Amino acid sequence: MNESCVFCRILAGDISAPVIFEDESSVAFLDHRPVFPGHCLLIPREHFEALPELPAKLIAPFFANTQLLARAVQMALGADGTFVAINNYISQSVPHLHVHIVPRRRKDGLRGFFWPRQKYESEEQMRLIQERIQTAVGNLQK
Amino acid sequence: MNESCVFCRILAGDISAPVIFEDESSVAFLDHRPVFPGHCLLIPREHFEALPELPAKLIAPFFANTQLLARAVQMALGADGTFVAINNYISQSVPHLHVHIVPRRRKDGLRGFFWPRQKYESEEQMRLIQERIQTAVGNLQK
Repeated sequence: MNESCVFCRILAGDISAPVIFEDESSVAFLDHRPVFPGHCLLIPREHFEALPELPAKLIAPFFANTQLLARAVQMALGADGTFVAINNYISQSVPHLHVHIVPRRRKDGLRGFFWPRQKYESEEQMRLIQERIQTAVGNLQK
Repeated sequence: MNESCVFCRILAGDISAPVIFEDESSVAFLDHRPVFPGHCLLIPREHFEALPELPAKLIAPFFANTQLLARAVQMALGADGTFVAINNYISQSVPHLHVHIVPRRRKDGLRGFFWPRQKYESEEQMRLIQERIQTAVGNLQK
């Protein structure tokens, strides 16, 4: 437990939250400032800052629960879909890994990927970035 | 393979894409219209429309690869973080499950959760939604 972490304090029972699911490895509760009602956050019980820190053994249970919640939120609210997202380090309001699961409806007024898209300046720029990421993947897999 | 699916056609080699990673279950390539250069998409080789359809046995390899790519994209581009997101059914441009992995930097001009937040109308509304989702989780776990 990280004493200064609001999510750890929810897990410890120091702060109450509308829990909707829990098991041995993770807990989900309603976000108190939802994008839409039913917006929940799934967090691991152990304190990890972001997705890169999640131990390999927790990947399967954590994302099986993410899938379960995506199904449950859509079903429970008669929604048409969901938005499932993780902010890692940047735009992360609480530095304890959390997945947002947000119900979506047709014409709900949100553009799903509302961020301005770019084009690569050149084929060369694209190849350079492709190679850099390939190299990083290779290094990480060593 | 779904003949009308552009991602299945990339997997089949009918359409070329700047692939950055592949293994037996999934493939990642650069999005041709990136939010930021280095924005990639990870897709399962088998055609599943969205996260709710991903078979249980693919959860671990698919999200282990998502984590690997989040690490690799951040490292390769010297970024400060990443945004990892899945649009399920709504705002999903290609109906073949894909995870967006987008590099993020401090002050990159994007608000991470740029969507307007609401408040629940009442405690009662919140409890009702909490109970509905709890019930749906319970039904799905039966």
